[in-house]
Amino acid sequence: MDALSERLLGEIVKIPLIDPHTHIDPHRPAARDLDDLLGYHYYTELAHSAGMDPTPLRSDVPAEERVRAIARFLPALENTWQYSWLLEIARDFFGFQGERIDETNVDQVLRLAEQRLGAESWAGEVFYRSNLEKVFLTNDFDDPLEGFDTDRYVPCLRTDDLVFRLGTAAVLERLRQATRCDVGNAGSLRGALEALFQRFVEKGARACAVSLPPDFAPQPVSVPAADPLIRRLLSGSRLAAHEELTVSCFVFWQVAELCREHGLPFDLMIGVHRNVYPGGVHQGRDLFNRLTSLHQFRALFNAFPEVTFPVSVLASDSNQELVAYSWIFPNVVPLGHWWYSNVPAYIEADARARLQAVPRTKQIGYYSDAYKLEFVLPKFNMYRQALARILAQDFVAGRRWSEEKAVDLARDVLRRNVERVFFQGQRVAQA
Amino acid sequence: MDALSERLLGEIVKIPLIDPHTHIDPHRPAARDLDDLLGYHYYTELAHSAGMDPTPLRSDVPAEERVRAIARFLPALENTWQYSWLLEIARDFFGFQGERIDETNVDQVLRLAEQRLGAESWAGEVFYRSNLEKVFLTNDFDDPLEGFDTDRYVPCLRTDDLVFRLGTAAVLERLRQATRCDVGNAGSLRGALEALFQRFVEKGARACAVSLPPDFAPQPVSVPAADPLIRRLLSGSRLAAHEELTVSCFVFWQVAELCREHGLPFDLMIGVHRNVYPGGVHQGRDLFNRLTSLHQFRALFNAFPEVTFPVSVLASDSNQELVAYSWIFPNVVPLGHWWYSNVPAYIEADARARLQAVPRTKQIGYYSDAYKLEFVLPKFNMYRQALARILAQDFVAGRRWSEEKAVDLARDVLRRNVERVFFQGQRVAQA
Amino acid sequence: MDALSERLLGEIVKIPLIDPHTHIDPHRPAARDLDDLLGYHYYTELAHSAGMDPTPLRSDVPAEERVRAIARFLPALENTWQYSWLLEIARDFFGFQGERIDETNVDQVLRLAEQRLGAESWAGEVFYRSNLEKVFLTNDFDDPLEGFDTDRYVPCLRTDDLVFRLGTAAVLERLRQATRCDVGNAGSLRGALEALFQRFVEKGARACAVSLPPDFAPQPVSVPAADPLIRRLLSGSRLAAHEELTVSCFVFWQVAELCREHGLPFDLMIGVHRNVYPGGVHQGRDLFNRLTSLHQFRALFNAFPEVTFPVSVLASDSNQELVAYSWIFPNVVPLGHWWYSNVPAYIEADARARLQAVPRTKQIGYYSDAYKLEFVLPKFNMYRQALARILAQDFVAGRRWSEEKAVDLARDVLRRNVERVFFQGQRVAQA
Repeated sequence: MDALSERLLGEIVKIPLIDPHTHIDPHRPAARDLDDLLGYHYYTELAHSAGMDPTPLRSDVPAEERVRAIARFLPALENTWQYSWLLEIARDFFGFQGERIDETNVDQVLRLAEQRLGAESWAGEVFYRSNLEKVFLTNDFDDPLEGFDTDRYVPCLRTDDLVFRLGTAAVLERLRQATRCDVGNAGSLRGALEALFQRFVEKGARACAVSLPPDFAPQPVSVPAADPLIRRLLSGSRLAAHEELTVSCFVFWQVAELCREHGLPFDLMIGVHRNVYPGGVHQGRDLFNRLTSLHQFRALFNAFPEVTFPVSVLASDSNQELVAYSWIFPNVVPLGHWWYSNVPAYIEADARARLQAVPRTKQIGYYSDAYKLEFVLPKFNMYRQALARILAQDFVAGRRWSEEKAVDLARDVLRRNVERVFFQGQRVAQA
Repeated sequence: MDALSERLLGEIVKIPLIDPHTHIDPHRPAARDLDDLLGYHYYTELAHSAGMDPTPLRSDVPAEERVRAIARFLPALENTWQYSWLLEIARDFFGFQGERIDETNVDQVLRLAEQRLGAESWAGEVFYRSNLEKVFLTNDFDDPLEGFDTDRYVPCLRTDDLVFRLGTAAVLERLRQATRCDVGNAGSLRGALEALFQRFVEKGARACAVSLPPDFAPQPVSVPAADPLIRRLLSGSRLAAHEELTVSCFVFWQVAELCREHGLPFDLMIGVHRNVYPGGVHQGRDLFNRLTSLHQFRALFNAFPEVTFPVSVLASDSNQELVAYSWIFPNVVPLGHWWYSNVPAYIEADARARLQAVPRTKQIGYYSDAYKLEFVLPKFNMYRQALARILAQDFVAGRRWSEEKAVDLARDVLRRNVERVFFQGQRVAQA
Repeated sequence: MDALSERLLGEIVKIPLIDPHTHIDPHRPAARDLDDLLGYHYYTELAHSAGMDPTPLRSDVPAEERVRAIARFLPALENTWQYSWLLEIARDFFGFQGERIDETNVDQVLRLAEQRLGAESWAGEVFYRSNLEKVFLTNDFDDPLEGFDTDRYVPCLRTDDLVFRLGTAAVLERLRQATRCDVGNAGSLRGALEALFQRFVEKGARACAVSLPPDFAPQPVSVPAADPLIRRLLSGSRLAAHEELTVSCFVFWQVAELCREHGLPFDLMIGVHRNVYPGGVHQGRDLFNRLTSLHQFRALFNAFPEVTFPVSVLASDSNQELVAYSWIFPNVVPLGHWWYSNVPAYIEADARARLQAVPRTKQIGYYSDAYKLEFVLPKFNMYRQALARILAQDFVAGRRWSEEKAVDLARDVLRRNVERVFFQGQRVAQA
């Protein structure tokens, strides 16, 4: 990294973070041990892809045995950026001095991790050392949202189960339990959804979210059209595929309406096919089909001008559409770099285009998507390095901006826009 | 920008320009005031996207009020390259000294603009200072093409209305007026089209052009198949969607035949969906669907080996197809960087691939697409900077070309190929 | 190229090569004359695209006349990387001193080539000077595989004819001749395929390969479903398009099963449409449709966990799927940079993403696809330069890897993984 990028990075890392999308468990935000960190699907799926027998991943295998099994394959992954997050955690959080983690030294990392992760204050220390103020959660609709500080751990209503799996008995039962509504038709379903939203908003939720398959094209569905299908579905009948899709569109549209009524942004995470590789490891089975377009969402974006849609696309080649739709639609906002696009090769290309053509006040640079707090820092560092390079090349060198002005642009995409989009109307301590 | 790129750029800017595609009005080629410049859809749509209420954009609002309303949102856009064109105009053409334009100083820019734009000789001065010799126009088929110098303002027949909106009463009436033909069936339609082409060619037109939706796949349609549909359409009946498409294909194919007969290149601008966001500002409603392929045009490219097709693609991820189809088909020529692909992130990637794999004699580097002359210079500068970086990195540093040789390649893509493609057989003063 | 990249490149070129995919004829591996080199479709198709009349390409035209006709158009191509391979051959193999090849000096190149290419030892010398140990062939299913050293020229069973052209009389006749089976139904077809595989494996074949159109989505087809179609096809009847596709799927799936039984990797080259431009020069008629997805191959990848699928994609915007599918599926391996993606603009972007996110032990960096041995070196050099730049920027500068470690990563992608994938279980002299 050149000196200018380094200087910019030095200022950028001082911007306190709000991480607008994670899968952190507020009851256990940090890792308990190295097994928790190596259990992140990136390591298990890449090790499996590199040839690891998945047997040691079974929960009845002792943690240390599992850790060593994965460690044996880490050298095969050490070129990947995903591996570099782990090494960065080991070195910066645990004081590991080695250049690589493999089966010869994983026991040492295990012990170093134990020393740190055991401390009562560890989660707080990770927040502090990561310059992190808040993280957004991903909450099931029936999450009681109790027993944690919702100011630090901001609830977000995840609606995949409602939109796509309402017909499964377990989801329906959970919905009835969570809302104490006897959900049986379109009207009572709407009532139950309303109850969920009220509870989430009362508990401080600042967003609603859903992940969508690449062929999903939301359309409004009238109650008369949806009601008979919903009755059949909720009474346990199987619907045909096109009928299921009608129900999904109906629920999705209801959710968008409730976002409007409750002033919640609706995060759309577009493009994932679930369970493409059923033989894969846990959370390592989903992939995508790049043949998708934001044009499929034009009815939605037009119908809800009052709802902000932070949009993540799984395929990097969707990024130009995201840029263009954000540049034209006031209510579309580019949101971070998701999953298979979350490596520097794609981050840098995609962020560059956004910074060149989307208003600075309406793009959210990054979220960690982390399951454990320790990953927030190395993942944001990966993004911030890419950001520093872009600012150095395009803005300071290319357009003769001052370094202060460039860092202020970073402040928009890393901090202020998270506040603008998710805390609009609510006071957040200024960075 | 490194010293080598700067040196190359210094030579490249000396190449006199012919701008092969603009929307300039030859009767009023330059802006009258700052309102004309800020009225460019890039500013109104980006400001609207950043939150501006569109009310001040109404034509009954005083110009200065509108200018101030937009200026209030310019700070939200100052990261965009579109904004940088405006700042460059203010500084280089108007003598503005500030580092940014916002509501605090827009009145000053307004007055500076007034001083320059009022001068009788202004358009000529912009030509001179832009090192610009000719601009291509985008003329409606019923444009009388009179009252301007067609050597400097080169007519180009735009055929969107004919291909896609022939069934609207207004278009039909305009066609009858323009051609004095009583258009009523396939035969008389062909006669009317022939009359249009004759008039345009007599007036010095050097190109025909059309913009196409991403799902358009031109096919030949026989007169017997088209005739009954055209009769119904021209008598005011509504056609089914597939019938409309048949008529569009028929007219499109007729246009291609007339290009062949009259020796006109046929510019294809592929990929735009019109009115995707009906609530957007004027000219800020169109978007695209990236799911399109040049494979849809194989019948056309095969059927018309004598017609040159300069092709612009709206989605940057279509660029590789454009490279490949241009490398294989003698009659396909890459044409500039269009609209949502007209920012450095996409220009540089797309131009690099073209320069690496398409013969140097058959690629047209850039056109401004400008509505006002003042934008030609900053837009070409954006392209030329990208070009200089590519030539420096790939050709001089990477392949040890001399700087002279690299600049000569720039001369092909910026100047000579415009002459080769559009003025073939006609003498153009050599650069 | 900066000093660090140069240093890395200096080490990378020392890694002895196995070229895992070529079209070299083992009976005539090197060019006989300059005509053989200029006859490479890249030159004939680019020259044709730049305006060359294809008449001199006819085989009844004297070679020197053809060479001069192409040379006249070389200046129009000198920007292309394809041209740079030729110049590199002329300079490094033939001792040509000029800066460019054109009609004024092509006779000199012709004579220089003659001096070298005539030597008995020439092919061996090209191997030696290219640091090349083995090349993979592309063998028709009825190739006798005799009369050459199969250790140096490794056979590979190309199955396009079987999968897609089984219904043509010539292919059927060749199949009957090659296998001495009276192929007439699904069962005897399977027997014939089995015979082909046995012969190829006995002769040292290390791979099976097929090129596929972008809309191909392999599915298992049962024998009862396929048998009547195959009987009709093999008895000379014409099938409907969907029936032909069923037969193609059946044969394809049989081939995959035979790869499993014989331990052969199955190279998939995805995305080519044949004969898109029938008026093009020989081998210059094929193009692609970028609308394709690896999602179409999920059934295959799931059904054959024991078969390794080295995958080449023709469209660079498929590369992210290739990265993701290789990162998830143990049996999917990215393979080189194919045809229209084989220029540095795409190689560098695509290789960067692979190096960042696919395990280092399962990606094959490059193959030359060459028809003549002389092209192996300049094509690999193009790749190795891109690789050196990526290693310098991302790994040494970006992640503070030692230079030795970076070069070792190059050794994986250039050499060790070719051994892992294609010679698993078989001893290959270590680099």
